[in-house]
Amino acid sequence: MSEATAPRLRVGMVGYAFMGAAHSVGWRTAPRVFDLPMDPEMAVIAGRDADAVAAAARRLGWAGTATDWRELVTRDDIDLVDVCTPGNLHAEIAIAALEAGKHVLCEKPLANSVAEAEAMVAAADAAAARGQVAMVGFNYRRLPATTLARQWIAEGRLGTVRQVRAQYLQDWIVDPQAPLSWRLQRDKAGSGALGDIGAHIVDLAQYLLGDQIVGVSGLCETFVKQRPLPERSSGLSATGGHGTGEVTVDDAALFTARFGGGAIGTFEATRFATGRKNALRIEVNGSDGSVAFDLEALNELSYYDGREPATSAGFRRVLVTEPEHPYLSAWWPPGHMLGYEHSFVHEVRDLVTAIGTGTPISPSFAEGLQVQRVLDAVESSAANESSWQKVPS
Amino acid sequence: MSEATAPRLRVGMVGYAFMGAAHSVGWRTAPRVFDLPMDPEMAVIAGRDADAVAAAARRLGWAGTATDWRELVTRDDIDLVDVCTPGNLHAEIAIAALEAGKHVLCEKPLANSVAEAEAMVAAADAAAARGQVAMVGFNYRRLPATTLARQWIAEGRLGTVRQVRAQYLQDWIVDPQAPLSWRLQRDKAGSGALGDIGAHIVDLAQYLLGDQIVGVSGLCETFVKQRPLPERSSGLSATGGHGTGEVTVDDAALFTARFGGGAIGTFEATRFATGRKNALRIEVNGSDGSVAFDLEALNELSYYDGREPATSAGFRRVLVTEPEHPYLSAWWPPGHMLGYEHSFVHEVRDLVTAIGTGTPISPSFAEGLQVQRVLDAVESSAANESSWQKVPS
Amino acid sequence: MSEATAPRLRVGMVGYAFMGAAHSVGWRTAPRVFDLPMDPEMAVIAGRDADAVAAAARRLGWAGTATDWRELVTRDDIDLVDVCTPGNLHAEIAIAALEAGKHVLCEKPLANSVAEAEAMVAAADAAAARGQVAMVGFNYRRLPATTLARQWIAEGRLGTVRQVRAQYLQDWIVDPQAPLSWRLQRDKAGSGALGDIGAHIVDLAQYLLGDQIVGVSGLCETFVKQRPLPERSSGLSATGGHGTGEVTVDDAALFTARFGGGAIGTFEATRFATGRKNALRIEVNGSDGSVAFDLEALNELSYYDGREPATSAGFRRVLVTEPEHPYLSAWWPPGHMLGYEHSFVHEVRDLVTAIGTGTPISPSFAEGLQVQRVLDAVESSAANESSWQKVPS
Amino acid sequence: MSEATAPRLRVGMVGYAFMGAAHSVGWRTAPRVFDLPMDPEMAVIAGRDADAVAAAARRLGWAGTATDWRELVTRDDIDLVDVCTPGNLHAEIAIAALEAGKHVLCEKPLANSVAEAEAMVAAADAAAARGQVAMVGFNYRRLPATTLARQWIAEGRLGTVRQVRAQYLQDWIVDPQAPLSWRLQRDKAGSGALGDIGAHIVDLAQYLLGDQIVGVSGLCETFVKQRPLPERSSGLSATGGHGTGEVTVDDAALFTARFGGGAIGTFEATRFATGRKNALRIEVNGSDGSVAFDLEALNELSYYDGREPATSAGFRRVLVTEPEHPYLSAWWPPGHMLGYEHSFVHEVRDLVTAIGTGTPISPSFAEGLQVQRVLDAVESSAANESSWQKVPS
Repeated sequence: MSEATAPRLRVGMVGYAFMGAAHSVGWRTAPRVFDLPMDPEMAVIAGRDADAVAAAARRLGWAGTATDWRELVTRDDIDLVDVCTPGNLHAEIAIAALEAGKHVLCEKPLANSVAEAEAMVAAADAAAARGQVAMVGFNYRRLPATTLARQWIAEGRLGTVRQVRAQYLQDWIVDPQAPLSWRLQRDKAGSGALGDIGAHIVDLAQYLLGDQIVGVSGLCETFVKQRPLPERSSGLSATGGHGTGEVTVDDAALFTARFGGGAIGTFEATRFATGRKNALRIEVNGSDGSVAFDLEALNELSYYDGREPATSAGFRRVLVTEPEHPYLSAWWPPGHMLGYEHSFVHEVRDLVTAIGTGTPISPSFAEGLQVQRVLDAVESSAANESSWQKVPS
Repeated sequence: MSEATAPRLRVGMVGYAFMGAAHSVGWRTAPRVFDLPMDPEMAVIAGRDADAVAAAARRLGWAGTATDWRELVTRDDIDLVDVCTPGNLHAEIAIAALEAGKHVLCEKPLANSVAEAEAMVAAADAAAARGQVAMVGFNYRRLPATTLARQWIAEGRLGTVRQVRAQYLQDWIVDPQAPLSWRLQRDKAGSGALGDIGAHIVDLAQYLLGDQIVGVSGLCETFVKQRPLPERSSGLSATGGHGTGEVTVDDAALFTARFGGGAIGTFEATRFATGRKNALRIEVNGSDGSVAFDLEALNELSYYDGREPATSAGFRRVLVTEPEHPYLSAWWPPGHMLGYEHSFVHEVRDLVTAIGTGTPISPSFAEGLQVQRVLDAVESSAANESSWQKVPS
Repeated sequence: MSEATAPRLRVGMVGYAFMGAAHSVGWRTAPRVFDLPMDPEMAVIAGRDADAVAAAARRLGWAGTATDWRELVTRDDIDLVDVCTPGNLHAEIAIAALEAGKHVLCEKPLANSVAEAEAMVAAADAAAARGQVAMVGFNYRRLPATTLARQWIAEGRLGTVRQVRAQYLQDWIVDPQAPLSWRLQRDKAGSGALGDIGAHIVDLAQYLLGDQIVGVSGLCETFVKQRPLPERSSGLSATGGHGTGEVTVDDAALFTARFGGGAIGTFEATRFATGRKNALRIEVNGSDGSVAFDLEALNELSYYDGREPATSAGFRRVLVTEPEHPYLSAWWPPGHMLGYEHSFVHEVRDLVTAIGTGTPISPSFAEGLQVQRVLDAVESSAANESSWQKVPS
Repeated sequence: MSEATAPRLRVGMVGYAFMGAAHSVGWRTAPRVFDLPMDPEMAVIAGRDADAVAAAARRLGWAGTATDWRELVTRDDIDLVDVCTPGNLHAEIAIAALEAGKHVLCEKPLANSVAEAEAMVAAADAAAARGQVAMVGFNYRRLPATTLARQWIAEGRLGTVRQVRAQYLQDWIVDPQAPLSWRLQRDKAGSGALGDIGAHIVDLAQYLLGDQIVGVSGLCETFVKQRPLPERSSGLSATGGHGTGEVTVDDAALFTARFGGGAIGTFEATRFATGRKNALRIEVNGSDGSVAFDLEALNELSYYDGREPATSAGFRRVLVTEPEHPYLSAWWPPGHMLGYEHSFVHEVRDLVTAIGTGTPISPSFAEGLQVQRVLDAVESSAANESSWQKVPS
């Protein structure tokens, strides 16, 4: 809860589908759980359909509505624009908002192309000089377990990091009759599993290591090349309509990578791992220990201390639910589980804290661009017989 | 979200510690996630310390405050009283509220004694004749996984239920220097692990089986008999002060049980299971299958289908996170985890729905009384050399 | 392997069903893996059916055969008699062998009654004065994981032990058409799940704690009271014949217990835990840590170090497969799994070492008797409304 | 046990280190567990050091010894030569044995180079025309769990196979002071993790899918480039001596792959996965289901049936310990675990059965060569900027 005297932070959000609902939880809940230096107000939600946006505003708790996102940019009473649209609109909205003096929170991936992302970084750099903050929403950094893993690696608890294996496994479109939603069309989504879920593991791996991927070799595959045209689409779920259309993005993307500091890694993003619902998994092996995380057990960290005597060493299941753990002193007594949406509450907490205190926020747009460059290099490699591609820095 | 035309349900809550915060999440969130037939308003929160209750109101989102719970009972503009105090106050507040015409939600365990619980049931019965609803807050029934398990057992998926093993394992007071909080004093808490966490597994076992415990043999133990007096106490955590006092409740309670339908069970509630943070575990074995749940992995159900061929049979880890599962179509896409506090959101959803539609709610006060009788029989048996005690019906 | 000069230990075994085959693995393998002070010879195997015993001898690797176990007792060229018959023959054979000057290894449970077990202890005591060794075959003590757990507890790694929860869960006779094998008849088996598998968890719990159960409260149940008569029976599996007969033993036995040193425990032995194949599970909670074992993952120990900082504490999965672990330097490189039958190899190693070096062996017949007394007290309690029964010492 | 009339199969084994001991278990145990059409005799064991080989013969149960492997090839009374030497000797011994009319069992990997492997296949083809059998020892195919997985995939239970992810993770040389054993020298071992453990996952993946890898993109890394020279070496363990030497093989090898039938896969073999002792893991995703295996839990298979209703679908832990499962009716009652070495018992069973009945055996030398070609393509790709390499067929 913020003190009555805390300055207001008036938020305008664009989009009200899956991410719009998730960000709304963040804005609504963060001030009731954490002490924040500013008081966020859920001011305006924007969407093209007046009835739908009005219903969303009532449901999600926004005070006002707009049917054109440009209104948020031009109004004086909006301090921050939260971009929750499909990726093809990110650049236009975020740049306009930054140029209009707003802070920006933009969902991941930052953009659908490196060129767009570069333009966004330029806008963010210019805005930073005016004191504005721009952040990209890689929310999985903000779970207590991943935050703890990052702290441990930064402290040197794992020693020299040697290897990473990262997977984001889903099975949402294994059925060839799953319709051709916008996420399966290159012009709207940029790429398939690679950009949607691969972006998460690239960001998370780099975040955990505090290091960057400098080169990759990739392989992409589209298993189901034609799908029924949807009548109505929302994310990956859609209702089948008439006729079929071409899937123009990858169903699965595999790549190997080298980090600047010498570690190597394997990465896999797929929507065809039958039975895996939301298995973002990452394991980091260092000379002194290892740590592993699985989003399907998001309150846990698996940790191996290599300095233990051999008789008692073993991967331990750390329940990251204690008051001593990141974010948790504000929540419940020991041993109480958090859920997926808490990552958005923490994202808002950290963003509002950074704005209110003038401290840097991460992931910045520059970090979002760098992830985009990794994804771009994977696609280039995949298109060139998996030959090694350096990631421009 | 409720329609603008939905009737209001004005809530007054007593208490603002752990359970007060948890119930507040329920009241705040349920109308934003579920379609409800009434529109709950977080009207007044009551507590003895004016400053503290004002701060809690701001933090948790309550419109008004009161420093005497009696105010909630006498005011005309309160429709429901939510009792989140220690157990020794449950009976007085709940009975007064019911007599004043309010609906009541009362945290578990229903009371500190069978006599109190019986009086509460009498009040609830009288109130029911006037159309009022009274519910006891066994929230763990309202996780998607436990609700699904109940449905399966009710459908006969397990065949004839033979055995139950239920444990609620915590380790919060293993340290003998943990202070003598109110939960360790019989006059305030009624009993120790037995009433606090044992009540949950008794209720959950009976709920899952759709059956009642008819007899028990119990064993109770207090491992640490003297503890430092607390300066300030909240639940099981407290700050140590000067001197020591006697622990007058059980640290651990073990019992065997028989159900009316022929099943047998083992039960264990303990605060001395070092390393177990919040391990409410229950497994039910039937002639055709088994199901198991662990609160430390609350989005999962472990299920064994005994009708499978032997070559492919095995306990399967069902991620209870799909739109087809209880409560989940209102939340996120497939594979996204819920947390502890969602149980309170579902509790509010179900309570408001029952009130709004005039349908029965469970667990009723009568069910809360029956749990109390089981706990009472366990204590009687433990005090009589573990001899068998029938549970009065 | 033994040196050429090691004295011979000529073994005669009675019985060649499940346990006969398992013990044969022990005798055959131990000298090829471990350095032993004596050289065991698989001299004679005894059984009533000449053809069957001859086939068993060829299959299992025994040099000679006998059709009457008395032959083993009277022959001069047998040093040790290994009793692998059903429980109702244990006392007669073991006593005769001890009186004839033989060492004896007797399968568990030691006997079908306390009276028989007492007579066996008397014979063993008399034989001990003549330098003979008598051991009861609780093989689960001799897995690397259980041996390690015992060492840790004995060293004080868990601090003061507070609680034990032990389960032996099987589902072999859930089907009511499973025939009435000898194991379901009181005159042959003594008791049901209690003696067959409950004996294992009683022994293992006492072994791990280095303490004895001093009192119990029990509940026994027979879910299926009539079963088809078998045509031919072997252990729990049998072929159905004509007519039905009464099951005269328990299907499931539950009890609570107190140990001499102050710990309390819950125990459960059942053949009706659908889906649990061989789940001998035990968890021990102490003031400084906990340890847990599950026979369905027999190369692992789950260990919680309560002295760890809260941020990194967690149950760790120790793969007990390293050369530093008990028994393992004689086997494979790190990380290679052992199986069920290795427990018998270790049993032979320890028994032969004790005989060859004149050091005491455990579990002795006296320890087997004490287990029998615990089981007897459970049955007495179950027959007396679960009232507390002291275990005579 | 074999019948008295079964023809003899006189075995000569070369090598008596880790693999020699493991194969000895196979030869010693298979005839005591399975009905075999021939009666294997452990005739002669060969090694250069007379004392050491004599001790090994006594320990492992071989009747005779030889100090030159050529003796096994030239003697008339040897029917089969079992090659358990380091890889640089495989070709010479196996070819000589085949040319001398012996059956051959050769440990994996088949050879240290494709050229050697091709020569071995040529020799095996010529020998096959004379009725001789040649097999390469990929023992992990012969665990009940992996055999069952193969059966399921062959039956179509997974539908169209889309993806494979295979890892063989060890941590045996994470310590930079681990000495330069022969396995770290290219001239003796051929390659590092790639050939030693990567060979296993290549073979296992191809076996499970019944398909072949047709192209790869690889990345190899040597993290620790100089190591202490060993005084004495055995496998990966060795005693440190004076000075250091260059590690000339890979510590870790990562690659992506395409199978002939359209599936794609990721593969990783590493000796630097701190905390992973022997984690051979493979998961196969098909359009109708998935199956996963982990050698650290070798009696289990994880299976997801994609045709289950969404409410009850989940990965199930199948304990592959039932009589209905491959190999298991010859072992113990339900629920009893096998260990690592049982794979060698099954290997001998299958090999002796194939020889005795004249049926084909797999993996043949040709299959071993194909694995070698995959490994060779990975190394070529790694040396050429990860560019795609076709695997010659």
